[in-house]
Amino acid sequence: MNVPADPTNPLRELSRHEDDLLERIGKIVSERTIVRGERHVGDDAAVLRPLVGEAIVSTDVAVWGVHLDAELFSLRDLGFKAVAAAVSDLAAMGARARALVLAVVAPAGTDLEELHYGAADAAQLTGCPIVGGDLSRGAQVSVAVTVLGECPGGGAVLRSGARPGDEILVTGPLGSSAAGLRRRRAGATLNDELVLAHRRPWPRLREGMAARDAGASAMMDLSDGLGLDLHRLADASGVGFELDDVPVASGATRDEATSGGEDYELIVTTSNAARLRLLFHDRGLRAPLTIGRVVERVERRLLRNEPFERRGFEHEL
Amino acid sequence: MNVPADPTNPLRELSRHEDDLLERIGKIVSERTIVRGERHVGDDAAVLRPLVGEAIVSTDVAVWGVHLDAELFSLRDLGFKAVAAAVSDLAAMGARARALVLAVVAPAGTDLEELHYGAADAAQLTGCPIVGGDLSRGAQVSVAVTVLGECPGGGAVLRSGARPGDEILVTGPLGSSAAGLRRRRAGATLNDELVLAHRRPWPRLREGMAARDAGASAMMDLSDGLGLDLHRLADASGVGFELDDVPVASGATRDEATSGGEDYELIVTTSNAARLRLLFHDRGLRAPLTIGRVVERVERRLLRNEPFERRGFEHEL
Repeated sequence: MNVPADPTNPLRELSRHEDDLLERIGKIVSERTIVRGERHVGDDAAVLRPLVGEAIVSTDVAVWGVHLDAELFSLRDLGFKAVAAAVSDLAAMGARARALVLAVVAPAGTDLEELHYGAADAAQLTGCPIVGGDLSRGAQVSVAVTVLGECPGGGAVLRSGARPGDEILVTGPLGSSAAGLRRRRAGATLNDELVLAHRRPWPRLREGMAARDAGASAMMDLSDGLGLDLHRLADASGVGFELDDVPVASGATRDEATSGGEDYELIVTTSNAARLRLLFHDRGLRAPLTIGRVVERVERRLLRNEPFERRGFEHEL
Repeated sequence: MNVPADPTNPLRELSRHEDDLLERIGKIVSERTIVRGERHVGDDAAVLRPLVGEAIVSTDVAVWGVHLDAELFSLRDLGFKAVAAAVSDLAAMGARARALVLAVVAPAGTDLEELHYGAADAAQLTGCPIVGGDLSRGAQVSVAVTVLGECPGGGAVLRSGARPGDEILVTGPLGSSAAGLRRRRAGATLNDELVLAHRRPWPRLREGMAARDAGASAMMDLSDGLGLDLHRLADASGVGFELDDVPVASGATRDEATSGGEDYELIVTTSNAARLRLLFHDRGLRAPLTIGRVVERVERRLLRNEPFERRGFEHEL
């Protein structure tokens, strides 16, 4: 969108270089992720080869200073995290990543190339090419990432399919991201292992696809913390749960593991955990960890027979 | 994305009602555009029935106070315009609209329901259901809209296909949107016909599909004005052009028609204008207007034998 002709509008004269900057950014985002037979950046829209099976789409916005501390991290981290968080929503459905687009708002003088380098890093690592974008002036930096995926043969895994008796598993121990933020605030370097977990989260795409192939009944990604997201899954499925344990990542606290969020591990429920384990093993994935089971009574939400409080990050809206 | 557990973080306590608000907004955006056999708002991602042919994707961000005057228009207009501008990018490829997602950033206290009513109005009118979204706190209201479309049989119309000898047409006279903004600033009511052209732009989806079916060689939508967008099309195609005329909408000035932007009429080039006219006629669409022809020499850019200046809205980045 734009502002119509108006000689008094200061936006008109501030820059004549939009097309040049777009070209530079186009190179950053596309040079590492060219897909044959597709048309990406540079037209009104991107043109992708046909998607196979169900089309999966999700959008996620990251605001500089809200979702990532602008004093402790870089714009490159913001670009990376925004893309990783969005791609994680594809993982949560068991989808294969196909493409993503970025809509960036930023004040004049923002290092937009740095931001796009971070996004391109995550796009390359997750195999999800950046095929388009938009840029606008605004008071604060934000990055809206929309991802597009596919489920060949259908069967995207929803939150709503958990059934009494299903086992509940997570794809790894929790709390690294929150622990990394705590450590960074206390002066840890950017390359500290836990700080990296916060700066460079990793979407579990392969785990999600394996869980779908193994017939998982429900799945979601842990973006807001187990203490909130497991309740959401249980609400959507109309069930309760009994947890035996919450696996805590090395260096994290129990509270960080429960309500830290941004770990992007997946919660999976299944009536056939043996099959899930076998498929993970066959594909060289880390063994999923059983944390409890689904029960029929929707109000029953327990961790070791104590109420499991609904607690995690809630956004201010 | 979110902020990890941190008891000192003020975001944690400001609202416990995210899920409730999301549910209300989910109703606003989905109640008028249910699609059978699809899973929309309420999971990690939307699940759509398979797309047919090439998948088309584009993103567009609108910032309150930048893309739309916050004194003269409403948040409902912002939601409408953001969606219309994005859907217009599907029209520009000749695609059929399938779905869209919204990523909204807003300060506390923003009437998010009003904004989403506007987006839902445009989604309903263009037949492009809102299937998902994200919300975040931020200093300024912005709406990033990502649209998903399909081209059955392939053949999305790019900017780069114009060939010497092709006729250049537009789908209607230009300048209404800029004229509407001028009139609104001068005190015209919100229901003034030209003001409506600014507040409620209409994406030319049917015209775009007809142009693709008629074998158009190149196409784009006029979002930044003919004075900029036609140069971009010529650059992408490696050609020049000779214009006979710029059709001016009733009530608009010549300058508004040339560089106003936001009319969202389509520019189409074709080697068979008779076929294009016939198809438009058969489908009950307004007859496209010939404005000139494509020439081989890339530096030749003329309107009635005078240089056609590169001029329109350029964003500040």
